[in-house]
Amino acid sequence: MPLESDPVRRDLLRVSGQDGFREDGVMTDTVVSSATKEVVIGFDRPFVVIGERINPTGRKLLAAEMAAGNFSRVVSDAVAQVEAGAQMLDVNAGIPLADEPAILAETVRLVQSVTDVPLSIDSSIVAALEAGLAAYKGKALVNSVTGEEERLEAVLPLVRKYGAAVVAISNDETGISEDPDVRFEVARKIVERAADHGIPRSDIVVDPLVMPVGAINAAGATAFRLIRRLREELKVNTTCGASNISFGLPNRHGLNAAFLSMAIGAGMTSAIMNPLHAEEMTAIMGADVMMGHDPNCGRWIRKFREPAAVGDEAPAGARAGREGRRRRQAAG
Amino acid sequence: MPLESDPVRRDLLRVSGQDGFREDGVMTDTVVSSATKEVVIGFDRPFVVIGERINPTGRKLLAAEMAAGNFSRVVSDAVAQVEAGAQMLDVNAGIPLADEPAILAETVRLVQSVTDVPLSIDSSIVAALEAGLAAYKGKALVNSVTGEEERLEAVLPLVRKYGAAVVAISNDETGISEDPDVRFEVARKIVERAADHGIPRSDIVVDPLVMPVGAINAAGATAFRLIRRLREELKVNTTCGASNISFGLPNRHGLNAAFLSMAIGAGMTSAIMNPLHAEEMTAIMGADVMMGHDPNCGRWIRKFREPAAVGDEAPAGARAGREGRRRRQAAG
Repeated sequence: MPLESDPVRRDLLRVSGQDGFREDGVMTDTVVSSATKEVVIGFDRPFVVIGERINPTGRKLLAAEMAAGNFSRVVSDAVAQVEAGAQMLDVNAGIPLADEPAILAETVRLVQSVTDVPLSIDSSIVAALEAGLAAYKGKALVNSVTGEEERLEAVLPLVRKYGAAVVAISNDETGISEDPDVRFEVARKIVERAADHGIPRSDIVVDPLVMPVGAINAAGATAFRLIRRLREELKVNTTCGASNISFGLPNRHGLNAAFLSMAIGAGMTSAIMNPLHAEEMTAIMGADVMMGHDPNCGRWIRKFREPAAVGDEAPAGARAGREGRRRRQAAG
Repeated sequence: MPLESDPVRRDLLRVSGQDGFREDGVMTDTVVSSATKEVVIGFDRPFVVIGERINPTGRKLLAAEMAAGNFSRVVSDAVAQVEAGAQMLDVNAGIPLADEPAILAETVRLVQSVTDVPLSIDSSIVAALEAGLAAYKGKALVNSVTGEEERLEAVLPLVRKYGAAVVAISNDETGISEDPDVRFEVARKIVERAADHGIPRSDIVVDPLVMPVGAINAAGATAFRLIRRLREELKVNTTCGASNISFGLPNRHGLNAAFLSMAIGAGMTSAIMNPLHAEEMTAIMGADVMMGHDPNCGRWIRKFREPAAVGDEAPAGARAGREGRRRRQAAG
């Protein structure tokens, strides 16, 4: 029965003293920045949305435009994603047969000229990562390194040289294990190797690799278990390509929303995703409230309160006052 | 970046062998029934929605009708909630100055005559619980007992006498602690006292008492921590009045949806809630998929796949075939 309509349970709500819940004290903050703005991915902070749209993979028109030096869609995608709530943007220039290092560097410069959010520089080609890093102003997130020997020894020195943070993908030469404990060990290996290169654990954001739940029924549970271990045992921040979970299934936004809020509950601290879908963004904002990462529900209330009536001088304050009273009644 | 559009990550999806994720082996099943139908609340089962609508508290019209012996709205509310996906219904007849035992018994009989789902018999008056239990066919869920001495010794003998299951609310004479560890100890006390009365742990469904997050910023995190402990340490099923979390805040359905999916991720196995809202029900179905509790995503696909085209002889099969192939490609 609803609390507010039940006199017995409402009476039970007499509460006193301090919040009983305490985090365990571990705080891992991954700090990235643009020339003018810092963003922190961290355990006790709001979830960080990294916009995925600037990526020509699977976007033929964008690929053709970028290859031809036309970046108008890159600019509009950058602006739209930041307006929709992305705190960072992933930038990828993986176009077959094109000069990826040059295009990635140009894209990085351009995006930094129209937005102030930190970037994730995304390529599977090491020379492109280096070109992007050389062009970048601030502390970037490099996307990505895997547990493969060759990749570790090619990418980690770059990350160190440019003082960047890095996404660590939990697969190695043997592929992706379905056993989350094996994937955990790959992540641990990357963290240890990074330390050998002078890169602190706090500059590593592990991608546990989210599988399509339509193909692997345990994909969600596996991801949550791995995310929890990465946070509690390895004490690293995490990210993922969130929409992978719903691949091949209907109502993808509904599934993505459930996955994202549950992953945040399990401890995930960022995702590479499309910020233009309201269902996913609402799930994330709601999860931030549930985690206690939206003080006084301020962002939630600003986003969803009804618009002020025309001619009403102080509608927001009046409404906040009413809500405050109702809350006090509920709590008192 | 999205998995399906990235050749590198798609290639990483070579997976083999068995799912690595394993539950810890503990299975607590709470079995309730009507005269003809059994419902199981359990750790490795789909989440159970207990419809909350048949409750005159805060519904003046329904209260007046029920007091006057007019149960037409009770009937329509029962049918609508079951059609919307409620696997159980909560039945409350708490009307001031009315003969609650008689009305509750009549409501129980009536609801059992129009639906076959098991019922939760809900009252703060022990005589009403007994009247409802006496009228009930099957194994009911009694809602509720608290950790207060007087309630324990009044309600538990009834639960034992009628072979029912019971909702245990984690507060006692001292009120509701904000410390989830204190609330856990109250739940433990109820489970131990129930055992003294011959009631097994599997017949106790603990309500951790969800507070409004607009009043207590840590309410979500507190609830999740308590739900996890109740499952992992006390090994009991859990329920709650889910909508309490969003009391006083805008976009309550959005917040309820985030809370429900996260609570399911933390281990909650049922909720007393309004099943008529699509956002909450979609979040629950999505969470069931994420937990691996919707085999082959069958319920999700049936609910959300596009309707078959007119004149298409075997649209569902054909679509399933396509999806099957896409899934195999994604996994293989």
